[in-house]
Amino acid sequence: MTAFPTIAWDGDAIVIVDQTRLPAEEVVLRVHTVEELAEAIMSLRVRGAPALGVAGSLGIALAATVAERAGSDITAAVERAATVLVATRPTAVNLAKGIAVAVAASAGGAAATVAAAVEVLEDTDRVTRAIGQRGASLLASFQQERLGRTTGELRLLTHCNAGALACVGWGTALGVVGAAFDRGLVAEVLTCETRPLLQGARLTAWELARMEIPYRVLVDGAAAGLILGGDVDAVVVGADRIAANGDVANKVGTVAHALAAARAGIPFIVAAPEDTIDVTTPSGRQIVIEERAASEVLSFAGHPTAPPGSAARNPAFDVTPADLVTAIVTERRTIHPAAGERPDQTPG
Amino acid sequence: MTAFPTIAWDGDAIVIVDQTRLPAEEVVLRVHTVEELAEAIMSLRVRGAPALGVAGSLGIALAATVAERAGSDITAAVERAATVLVATRPTAVNLAKGIAVAVAASAGGAAATVAAAVEVLEDTDRVTRAIGQRGASLLASFQQERLGRTTGELRLLTHCNAGALACVGWGTALGVVGAAFDRGLVAEVLTCETRPLLQGARLTAWELARMEIPYRVLVDGAAAGLILGGDVDAVVVGADRIAANGDVANKVGTVAHALAAARAGIPFIVAAPEDTIDVTTPSGRQIVIEERAASEVLSFAGHPTAPPGSAARNPAFDVTPADLVTAIVTERRTIHPAAGERPDQTPG
Repeated sequence: MTAFPTIAWDGDAIVIVDQTRLPAEEVVLRVHTVEELAEAIMSLRVRGAPALGVAGSLGIALAATVAERAGSDITAAVERAATVLVATRPTAVNLAKGIAVAVAASAGGAAATVAAAVEVLEDTDRVTRAIGQRGASLLASFQQERLGRTTGELRLLTHCNAGALACVGWGTALGVVGAAFDRGLVAEVLTCETRPLLQGARLTAWELARMEIPYRVLVDGAAAGLILGGDVDAVVVGADRIAANGDVANKVGTVAHALAAARAGIPFIVAAPEDTIDVTTPSGRQIVIEERAASEVLSFAGHPTAPPGSAARNPAFDVTPADLVTAIVTERRTIHPAAGERPDQTPG
Repeated sequence: MTAFPTIAWDGDAIVIVDQTRLPAEEVVLRVHTVEELAEAIMSLRVRGAPALGVAGSLGIALAATVAERAGSDITAAVERAATVLVATRPTAVNLAKGIAVAVAASAGGAAATVAAAVEVLEDTDRVTRAIGQRGASLLASFQQERLGRTTGELRLLTHCNAGALACVGWGTALGVVGAAFDRGLVAEVLTCETRPLLQGARLTAWELARMEIPYRVLVDGAAAGLILGGDVDAVVVGADRIAANGDVANKVGTVAHALAAARAGIPFIVAAPEDTIDVTTPSGRQIVIEERAASEVLSFAGHPTAPPGSAARNPAFDVTPADLVTAIVTERRTIHPAAGERPDQTPG
């Protein structure tokens, strides 16, 4: 699998694939100022926790580089950039972390700041490759043990976008899918459209097309019926946060697939970096679910879908209980929550 | 609850609420010819199995009335109308049944044909009222036994549109909701938008607003998380077909709600007329699921949602296994499949 650079540093600018223009157009932005980057983050041109971490650190590297070339004060420029960028998505933990790493390196000058930011990018890339290979091996052993096959006949189902666009490098869930495809294990991927914002139809389908992996799009509600009907061999998703007991918060719609997978007896696999695991959160009950704007549910591409004056529920995430999670695959270990393993007690 | 006439006979014409214009506009059509009715059926201005049955019989009554007034041959006019109308939706069983009832009566003249068609309408209306009252009683006893309350605090979840628009009279699932609301049992209804065609957001929300029942719209994927999180007290849905063992085929997306309801320990109630039960179908495995056009999934209001060239899965229905169905409520009995009762062996 060839990773395509959804975010990169070209020596002068941050290069970003504009996610808001996909899938209609593939627009590559060259971002030359911190203000342009702040706009790109706020407008969701770049989104996804790991991608935001990389964007934040590259933003600081950009500020240091511009200041040094102009002969102005690097420290002041970096501080100003950090303030502007943190404010774009104040609850994005990875963004703040990425910024902090580059700020710490900026005392050594622009070159050191760039080096630190590129290291964040390369680390993120390495993590996704490790997750991809580990997940693909898990699918290979599943295929051999449970299905008695060694060739490419797995039909995988995924939800939302846990690919290169959100996660850099190979992506997490899509990294597993891509690595398994490269090993000849995959016949087809079913990608749920993922209402309300359609990341599955727009972004995951675009990445699968780009990787030349056969795929079909389905409405989120069709997944459970297809799983129960025997049309899916494994579910592979990402995670926004994993609790100490193995409960998994991910994009709304995920837990329905997990319930169906458990009943059908197929694996439900979560692919996520170690830093998604929050051992200070005992279980999913302590995870507060963000409620987003009603307008996301009540309209589509500017067209209202419900009667004027309608109200909506719009939780951004749901929690999949640990007993429904066959495996959590990180860059350094595989945890089996449904078999009683806990992330806070499983060695890597 | 006041039933609003979504299809009626006014002495000269068939009166229909145009479902394709909802929720943006409430357009009432007065249909004066069989050709106009055929167009309305093919364009889904009138849809839903029971509503189609009524439309078919009224179409024959219309043909007989027009012919008698013109002094032309009633039998020939009725035969021509039957041919035209059956062809509009050749797999719609209720449409063909409704047509056949009115055709059989047409030997007695136009007045007898109209009387037979109005009887189909009134029968359908009576059936939904009986289902609504029986379902509301079930919810009342559930509320008292399981929640220890007797006042209106139930939070109900429904899917697709099993209301007056589809079913005439009170509707089936929405008849239960409305009758329970009239008894003071209901705090709120959550209506799943029901992708791909959004019957929940467009039609069910419109009916709930019209009945002045508090409601919120949600994406289909949000339902399971809300059910598991304790935000729903019961799920009430309709059915397209029920097998002899109690397996239920209904609009795609239904079975995910059933899986979540079973895990959360809340009732999953199916409201449907007796004629939905097909004892010649042993189980859900024998129900062939219609695969609809990919374009329904891959676009929205004319806007493409996935990359050009994408393929889709688009099953119209899914099958909820009998062991997940707490109760099937018909106009003459309540069957408890999860407790082992079978529709083909449960007396009414």
